[in-house]
Amino acid sequence: MDAAVPSPPTDSPLFSRIRLAVPSNVPHIHKLIHQMAVYERLSDVCSTTESDLSANLFTSPPFQSVTIFILEVSPKPFPEDSPHNSNPNYIPLVRILNSDRPVDDPDREIFKSEDENVVVAGFSLFFPNFPAYTGKPGLYVESIFVRKCYRKKGFGKMLLSAVAKQAVKMDYCEVLWVVLNWNGNAIRFYEDMGAQILPERRIYRLTGDALQLHQNDD
Amino acid sequence: MDAAVPSPPTDSPLFSRIRLAVPSNVPHIHKLIHQMAVYERLSDVCSTTESDLSANLFTSPPFQSVTIFILEVSPKPFPEDSPHNSNPNYIPLVRILNSDRPVDDPDREIFKSEDENVVVAGFSLFFPNFPAYTGKPGLYVESIFVRKCYRKKGFGKMLLSAVAKQAVKMDYCEVLWVVLNWNGNAIRFYEDMGAQILPERRIYRLTGDALQLHQNDD
Repeated sequence: MDAAVPSPPTDSPLFSRIRLAVPSNVPHIHKLIHQMAVYERLSDVCSTTESDLSANLFTSPPFQSVTIFILEVSPKPFPEDSPHNSNPNYIPLVRILNSDRPVDDPDREIFKSEDENVVVAGFSLFFPNFPAYTGKPGLYVESIFVRKCYRKKGFGKMLLSAVAKQAVKMDYCEVLWVVLNWNGNAIRFYEDMGAQILPERRIYRLTGDALQLHQNDD
Repeated sequence: MDAAVPSPPTDSPLFSRIRLAVPSNVPHIHKLIHQMAVYERLSDVCSTTESDLSANLFTSPPFQSVTIFILEVSPKPFPEDSPHNSNPNYIPLVRILNSDRPVDDPDREIFKSEDENVVVAGFSLFFPNFPAYTGKPGLYVESIFVRKCYRKKGFGKMLLSAVAKQAVKMDYCEVLWVVLNWNGNAIRFYEDMGAQILPERRIYRLTGDALQLHQNDD
């Protein structure tokens, strides 16, 4: 055997695609949010319902308020005539990953999308922000999540890059997000992407009864 | 003298009002942002121009994207027939402060508003966010600032309360904001208002060249 001979083509290509979410994805988004809450050890505060999402998402054109990118994977190429390819707001990003074996996805039935080959593997949720010191909008990434069996394949980076690329396209000044300080994997991943921590900033929140108390402020 | 006799009415009432910003406030907002940058020790990164603000503010109805509340003060009552009082999106909040002497405002000429008695004293800038775990929108307060000579009079609380009150009115789930961890005064003020720190969260940002690099990501 000659060491210079390239390895044979893999038998398990994994086609991946990032596209805008559509209303029929609400059940997938709902399940992804609850899986993300388990991962972030915040299940006890996760109360999102499908009807909350239906009521509050898709209420304005993409990128103008809350926007969701869906990450899908398939062992076969995505159909050329998919309606997502003619969405005037966003052309899907497609990548082919060479995998040494098919992914064993225990939740394949739950996350089936579009046709029987396509499975929803993750998402990102973001909305415009407005850093006063720049005077220009940016994008604030509220959530980014890849299902367990699809991790360590570059999909997190693909999702965040897709948001960054969109920010550049719109001439926005920044992409901003929050990380949990115990999540070393996420921090290394973000720093590898060129992001920098804003070390002095802490987040405060007014919610629940403490928020309601302000109802009668004058 | 009887100790129970109430003190006589002050000679220096300070009328204060919170209302929605209008396009003619852009010069005020621009100057407030630069004064805030000095206060936050971030002047070197503050590049906002009036034309950035004109281009990016007032592009959608109030509360649907970036929204600014203006705090004004006046030694005389605000006119009843002010056009702000007939704004269908927001009824101004008015409060009267009893001050023991008039405020000496060195920037009065720069911040003059509406009529010669009224002066812009501060602002808050906020936009909708969308905490995935609630499935409902909230309000993210990007900036809150009161000019130096008007501090320690409760105006910061008045501005933040106005945002909280609006959030409750819209049935939003939270009000969220960022504080610099060295700003003990701000932290005490926020905790007194019932806000809680999210201690594990850190903010990461992708901007400048590191953001532009993602332009060609696929």
